[in-house]
Amino acid sequence: MKDFVPQWVIEAKRDGKAVSKEEIKELINRFTNNQLPEYQMAAFAMAVYFQGMTNEETLALTDAMMRSGDTLTWETLSRPTADKHSTGGIGDKLSIPLAPLVAACGVAVPMISGRGLGITGGTLDKLDSIPGYQTSVPVEKFRDILERVGCSIIGQTDRLAPADRKLYALRDVTGTVPSIPLITASILSKKLAEGAETLVFDVKWGSGAFMKTPKQARALAESLVNGARGAGRKATALVNDMNQPIGAAVGNALEIRESVEMLQGRGPASTLRLVLDLAVPMLTLSGVAADEAAARALLAEKLASGAALDVFARMVEAHGGNPRIAESPEAVLPAAACVVDVPAPPETADTPVIASVDAETVGRLVLLLGGGRRAVTDAIDYAVGADRILAAGTRVAPGDSLLRLHARSKQEAEELQTMALSAFRFKAS
Amino acid sequence: MKDFVPQWVIEAKRDGKAVSKEEIKELINRFTNNQLPEYQMAAFAMAVYFQGMTNEETLALTDAMMRSGDTLTWETLSRPTADKHSTGGIGDKLSIPLAPLVAACGVAVPMISGRGLGITGGTLDKLDSIPGYQTSVPVEKFRDILERVGCSIIGQTDRLAPADRKLYALRDVTGTVPSIPLITASILSKKLAEGAETLVFDVKWGSGAFMKTPKQARALAESLVNGARGAGRKATALVNDMNQPIGAAVGNALEIRESVEMLQGRGPASTLRLVLDLAVPMLTLSGVAADEAAARALLAEKLASGAALDVFARMVEAHGGNPRIAESPEAVLPAAACVVDVPAPPETADTPVIASVDAETVGRLVLLLGGGRRAVTDAIDYAVGADRILAAGTRVAPGDSLLRLHARSKQEAEELQTMALSAFRFKAS
Repeated sequence: MKDFVPQWVIEAKRDGKAVSKEEIKELINRFTNNQLPEYQMAAFAMAVYFQGMTNEETLALTDAMMRSGDTLTWETLSRPTADKHSTGGIGDKLSIPLAPLVAACGVAVPMISGRGLGITGGTLDKLDSIPGYQTSVPVEKFRDILERVGCSIIGQTDRLAPADRKLYALRDVTGTVPSIPLITASILSKKLAEGAETLVFDVKWGSGAFMKTPKQARALAESLVNGARGAGRKATALVNDMNQPIGAAVGNALEIRESVEMLQGRGPASTLRLVLDLAVPMLTLSGVAADEAAARALLAEKLASGAALDVFARMVEAHGGNPRIAESPEAVLPAAACVVDVPAPPETADTPVIASVDAETVGRLVLLLGGGRRAVTDAIDYAVGADRILAAGTRVAPGDSLLRLHARSKQEAEELQTMALSAFRFKAS
Repeated sequence: MKDFVPQWVIEAKRDGKAVSKEEIKELINRFTNNQLPEYQMAAFAMAVYFQGMTNEETLALTDAMMRSGDTLTWETLSRPTADKHSTGGIGDKLSIPLAPLVAACGVAVPMISGRGLGITGGTLDKLDSIPGYQTSVPVEKFRDILERVGCSIIGQTDRLAPADRKLYALRDVTGTVPSIPLITASILSKKLAEGAETLVFDVKWGSGAFMKTPKQARALAESLVNGARGAGRKATALVNDMNQPIGAAVGNALEIRESVEMLQGRGPASTLRLVLDLAVPMLTLSGVAADEAAARALLAEKLASGAALDVFARMVEAHGGNPRIAESPEAVLPAAACVVDVPAPPETADTPVIASVDAETVGRLVLLLGGGRRAVTDAIDYAVGADRILAAGTRVAPGDSLLRLHARSKQEAEELQTMALSAFRFKAS
């Protein structure tokens, strides 16, 4: 591009003036090829933080980032393709039962997931807790598993949207993470490169989520759907409360176990409901179900028949893990040395009803038990975490177990009792 | 400083929260010592652009930048010290007659100046047009000249406020130049390090200036005076219109010549008035004149007696130049090969009064003649420029000379006639 002066583009954005599609493309191309200094990209990102981006600019940014690396297509596949993306939350294992369930209904799910950082767990870490499961596979094998099994969950490769990886690392240290257009382009560039025809977004808000208010979450949801549709995909978004943990288990192996229980028709009903809510639009937008009622009937059938559980077993096997996990997860998954109950305090004699369970506190608890990362290079203990976490609204008596801690030692579990208790608020009725 | 996380400081500024003096100091210290990535400083600068800075923050930034290198003190000097700083303008040679004039009145002027870039000339480039004048001298010699002559104008050294040089270079390419706290810290860190006890600021606004409105200029003036006083200096500021060029000459050697003419008691009266307006507070704040009237009387005497011109001659001599410049500048300064008049157009038969002379156009004209820099590494032709520029309000007839172009060739002069003419607007009366 002739006459491209990066600081003029930064100044235009700073002053709220239009930045052209070509300018954004050039900015991203140069940045990806190390031809644009990081300080110029950091200044541009901060200007975007303050001035936002038009729909056209966000689409152009997303497109340029998507095209910075390989893009996959699934035209040769015999089934329609759909994927879901979640902005992440405490105990969010929804992808793990969702992918085989949707695949069992005839929609292929090519899912590329990330690792967790801080209090937010990552789907990839949960799968890593299954001994033998390989999250890093070549594209040919990914395609083969999709064709044979119907779903495959793998980790990001260096070749998918490399501009996003570089930009995200820069945003992380320059105070430019919480910007809706930048978040949109980051999420969408990877999801569009992944090639699924239908995309369903699960945008969380609350204490355990990145977006703290429903308003922010709705704005991000709208931006993601606009961006995906602008790129020619079918898309919709759900906005969900993330003030309480999702499900009754938080921690990598414990969440795999809970996922299996859901596919077995057990597990927390409220969590299964979230899975079904995400599955419905994946089926209807893909055209395998005519409407919501048809989609729900199909999903119920594939759960009841064990077809969804069978797809999960075959996915694990195709990735090198033991398919017995579908029957006896406890026989396959690692277990913590010490499991300790956290009893309800004496005050629950007067205030027996759980008013709330703070997601962020539960997330920190699992991090301190060794089940999460403080830095990207940290190792994770897959076995630790918390399970049998009682939900808000449950009635308890003093001494009842509020949750169980799975720790590396009795000492570690005892040190965290007070913190575990602090996640709970009680009320009279 | 313990627990210093640069991105937390960036985020605090981004969110309009307070940043502590210690945090700003640490940020600048690390930046100067290459321990803070430039992308973090760029993001911080852009956040400052949008959120501004409190007085305390600006003082802390200025102080940290000042202390990033050497600081000079003049306590051993037998006279009080004062300096002026101008935000620059087209034809702004005011420092050159001002320094010797104030020195002749008994106030030492330790002046450290910069080079020009773009359409704005630099005092240092003008002095470089005097054959032999050395603008780069050791501190000991600077001190010696100040003691013996009373004034010395030199160039910035690498050891004075190095943080500013590094930050300015970064701001220049990241769209973060036009921020009043950042401009304030940039100007003041150098001027405070220079050590003068009194500082007078000449803040310009208009087409040829950085600040486009009087309001912006007043805000910068106030910020500079607050900062200087906060650092324990005596300070005041003048706000001046820069829509028209200063004086009748623009171009390096031509401006030295006009400066000498002012010290000889000739030269444009309006320009001499600007010099005197700046000199008055330098004398009164330094205590060598009790009030404005006494200051003006003293200045008039030093001009009329030739004492100011003599100080100029001795300053040039002390720096290695030929003192004869004070009597016959034309014998010492370089001259352009070709001098061409630009005649008033036929339309001036009906509209004979010059309504305005656009400073920015005159600045661009001199740049195109070869008298300015487009990039910092460009070489300058000291002889070229424009002189005998008629001022707004002058009555002309078709064919009268509006200005003279001093060019390297007749062809270059002729090519710029139309542009030169375009700087002038005419009116009926």
